[in-house]
Amino acid sequence: MSEVIATYRLFDKKSQFEKKAEGIALGLTIGSWTDLPQLEQEQLKNHKGRVVSIQETGRETENGREAEISIAYPAANFSADLPAILVTVFGKLSLDGVIRLIDLKFSDTLAKQFPGPKFGVNGIREKTGAFNRPLVMSIFKGVIGRDTSYLEKQLYAQLKGGIDIVKDDEILFDNPLTPFEERVKLGKRVIQESGKKALYAVNLTGRTSELKEKARKGVEMGASAYLFNVFAYGLDVLQELAEDPAISVPIMAHPAVSGAFTSAPFHGFSTELVLGKLVRMAGADFTLFPSPYGSVALERPAALKTAEMALEQSIHKQTFPVPSAGIHPGLVPVLYEDFGINSIINAGGGVHGHPNGAEGGGRAFRQAVDAVVAGQSLEEAAKEMEDLRTALHLWGTGK
Amino acid sequence: MSEVIATYRLFDKKSQFEKKAEGIALGLTIGSWTDLPQLEQEQLKNHKGRVVSIQETGRETENGREAEISIAYPAANFSADLPAILVTVFGKLSLDGVIRLIDLKFSDTLAKQFPGPKFGVNGIREKTGAFNRPLVMSIFKGVIGRDTSYLEKQLYAQLKGGIDIVKDDEILFDNPLTPFEERVKLGKRVIQESGKKALYAVNLTGRTSELKEKARKGVEMGASAYLFNVFAYGLDVLQELAEDPAISVPIMAHPAVSGAFTSAPFHGFSTELVLGKLVRMAGADFTLFPSPYGSVALERPAALKTAEMALEQSIHKQTFPVPSAGIHPGLVPVLYEDFGINSIINAGGGVHGHPNGAEGGGRAFRQAVDAVVAGQSLEEAAKEMEDLRTALHLWGTGK
Repeated sequence: MSEVIATYRLFDKKSQFEKKAEGIALGLTIGSWTDLPQLEQEQLKNHKGRVVSIQETGRETENGREAEISIAYPAANFSADLPAILVTVFGKLSLDGVIRLIDLKFSDTLAKQFPGPKFGVNGIREKTGAFNRPLVMSIFKGVIGRDTSYLEKQLYAQLKGGIDIVKDDEILFDNPLTPFEERVKLGKRVIQESGKKALYAVNLTGRTSELKEKARKGVEMGASAYLFNVFAYGLDVLQELAEDPAISVPIMAHPAVSGAFTSAPFHGFSTELVLGKLVRMAGADFTLFPSPYGSVALERPAALKTAEMALEQSIHKQTFPVPSAGIHPGLVPVLYEDFGINSIINAGGGVHGHPNGAEGGGRAFRQAVDAVVAGQSLEEAAKEMEDLRTALHLWGTGK
Repeated sequence: MSEVIATYRLFDKKSQFEKKAEGIALGLTIGSWTDLPQLEQEQLKNHKGRVVSIQETGRETENGREAEISIAYPAANFSADLPAILVTVFGKLSLDGVIRLIDLKFSDTLAKQFPGPKFGVNGIREKTGAFNRPLVMSIFKGVIGRDTSYLEKQLYAQLKGGIDIVKDDEILFDNPLTPFEERVKLGKRVIQESGKKALYAVNLTGRTSELKEKARKGVEMGASAYLFNVFAYGLDVLQELAEDPAISVPIMAHPAVSGAFTSAPFHGFSTELVLGKLVRMAGADFTLFPSPYGSVALERPAALKTAEMALEQSIHKQTFPVPSAGIHPGLVPVLYEDFGINSIINAGGGVHGHPNGAEGGGRAFRQAVDAVVAGQSLEEAAKEMEDLRTALHLWGTGK
C-alpha cells in the first residue's frame, strides 16, 4: 500500500509508548477504531494509521525516557504534495509537547510523484566540466548597498581563480542597485568573457506567485543557476520551480530560516530529513547546510547524514551536498575525508580574505583540491603553489 | 527610516552581548564597517544594521547568561515581503546556535505594505450576526474515509445547535470521497437550509500555484470561508490569498506544523510573533492556536500574548483569536476571563461528544456563552438549560 512512514523521537515519563503510538496512529487518521461497528471498520481500514515500531533508546532526560516510534500513514489520506504530507504527519503533532520528526520514508509509488533534481550531481558536473573532484564554490561578499560594477569585479576575480560556482548572498534581494535582471545579464557576460564553464546562482526572490515567471525570464536572459531561500517560502514552492521545464537551470536550496525548526535538540525536524531528503525530493540540485567546522556549526553526525541523504540510492537524482561556513583551503583534506568526491567546497571569507584577493583565494582552493585528490599533502603541494602556501600560512591546516 | 526591529533571546557564557549584537547588526547587513574608507561608509550607512538595545534578563541557564537584544534592519536591504524579511532577520542567524526570535517591530511605512485581514473581528461579526459575545466554532470529527452524506449530517447538527462557524479538519485534503468542490456546495446548501448566518471554513489544499484559482472558484460556488494550513505553505502564500480581491471570504490560519518552530523554549520563533502578529499582517481573519487548557497545550502567557497581538492597536484589522483544543462548555467562564469577548470558543470533542450529539453540544456552548456574558454562573444557568446541565455533568467546570 502506498504510504509514508514517519519516525518520531519522543519522551514519556511512564514509558507508555504503545499507548502514545496508538494514539498518534489513530488520532492523526480516522480518530477512533475499537468502538466502531464492523461495517465502519471495513470502510475505514484503508485509512487507518499503523504503528510500525517502537524502540526505546535507553536514554533518560528531564522529559522522561526517550523512544523512537514509527507510524505508517496511508497515502489514501492525503494528496501527493508535501504540504498535505507535513500536515498529516507533523501538523497538530508538532504542537504536542516534546517531539521531533526524525525521518520520513516514502513508498515508491508516492516518491515517484516528486520530481527530484533536474540535473543532480552528474548534471552539474557536465555543466561545469568538473569531473573526478569536489567542486569549488564561493559567495559574493558585502554586496548590500553596492552596485553592479562591484559585483562584476568580484565575479570576474572568483572565476579567474578557478571557482566552479559563484552564488549570490542569500540576503541580496531584488533592489535598485543590483536588480535581478542586471545580475543575470552581468553573470552571463562575465562567465562568457572568462572562458570558463562556471555557474552563477542568482538569488531568486520576491512574491511567491511571481517566482516562476521571473525564473523563466531569467533563464531566457541567460541565468545559469538559481539560489532559492526555500524555507522562507515552502518546500512545495521549490518543487513547482523544479517541475517547470522552462526553468532549465540547476536550483540551489539555501538553509536560511531552517535553523528555526532543526536546531533545537528535541523539537522540530531533523536536519538530515529537511536539508537532505526533503529538498532533494522537492527538486534541489544543491543543498547548502552548515559545515561541522565553522562558528555556525552543525554537529558532525547530522552534517554527514544530511550529505548521505542527498546522495543515497533512490529513484531521484543526487543532490550535491554543500557543507558551508568556516571553510578555508586548509580544511580541504578534512572536507574530502568527511564528504568525499561528490561534494562542493564552499567558501566566503576563505576566498575573499586571501592576501591575493578572491582570485588568489580561488586558486588556493583549487590547488588544495587537486593535491588532496592526487593523494598529496597540502604542505607538500604548498611548496610549489604560492596561493595555497599563503592560505595555509594565514589560516593553518586541519580543523 | 523604514525598518524592521528584531528582538532575539540569546545566551552567552561570557556576557559578551555587545560584541554579539554588533556582529549580528553588521554580519546580516553590510558585513564590515570600521575598516571601510570614509567614502564607502557614506555610501553604505543607510544599509547598516543598528543595535537598538541589549538587556540581560538575569536568568542563567546551561547555555550561559540570557539577554534580549534588538537589532534594526533598514528596509532598504530587503524587498517588502515576508520571505525577504525572515531571511534577513533570521536566515543564517536561525542556524547560529541557541537563539530565538521573539518579536519583530515594523515601521508604519513597512507595515502598510502588508494587507492584514480582509474582514477581521468586525467583519466576521457582521457575517455571522454574532455581536457582543464570543463566537462559537466547531470542527468536523472523524471525516477521513467518510463521504459527503456523513459530513452533511454533522454540519447540519452543528448549525442546528447554534454553532457560528464550522471548520474542516486540517487533515482533510482534496479526496475522492469528499472533494473540495462538493464540500463547498454542500456547505452552501446546508447553511441556507439551516436559515443561520453561519460560516463553513473549507480546507484549502493542493499545490501552491493552484490555490488562488481554486479559492476563487470556490468563492464563486458559494464558499463562505477557508481554512488554510499556512505553515505547510508559507506566510507569503497566505498573504497572496488575502490580497486577492476575488477571494472575498475570511481566511482561517491553522497552526499545523508551527510547533516545529515555536515549541522549543530557546530556538525558533515565539508563538505570539508567528501565530499572533505575522499571520495577522499576512491577512488571516482568524488565528487558531493551542489553548492553555487541553492536552496539546500552550503555556498561558504565550497563549494570552498571541491573542493580544492578534487584537492590539495597529494599522491592520483585528484577527479573531481562536484558542483551541481541550475545550468543553465548562471552560467557557475561564476562556471568557482569559480571552474576553473578542475571541472564538472552538471545540471538537466538546461538541461531538455531548450525549445529545453535536446539536446538543452546540446548544450547551451557546448556553454557556450567553450565561457568562450575562454575568450568570454556569451552575445557575444549567438549572434551566438541559444541554448545558448534561455537559457540566459530563465534563465538569473550570480548568
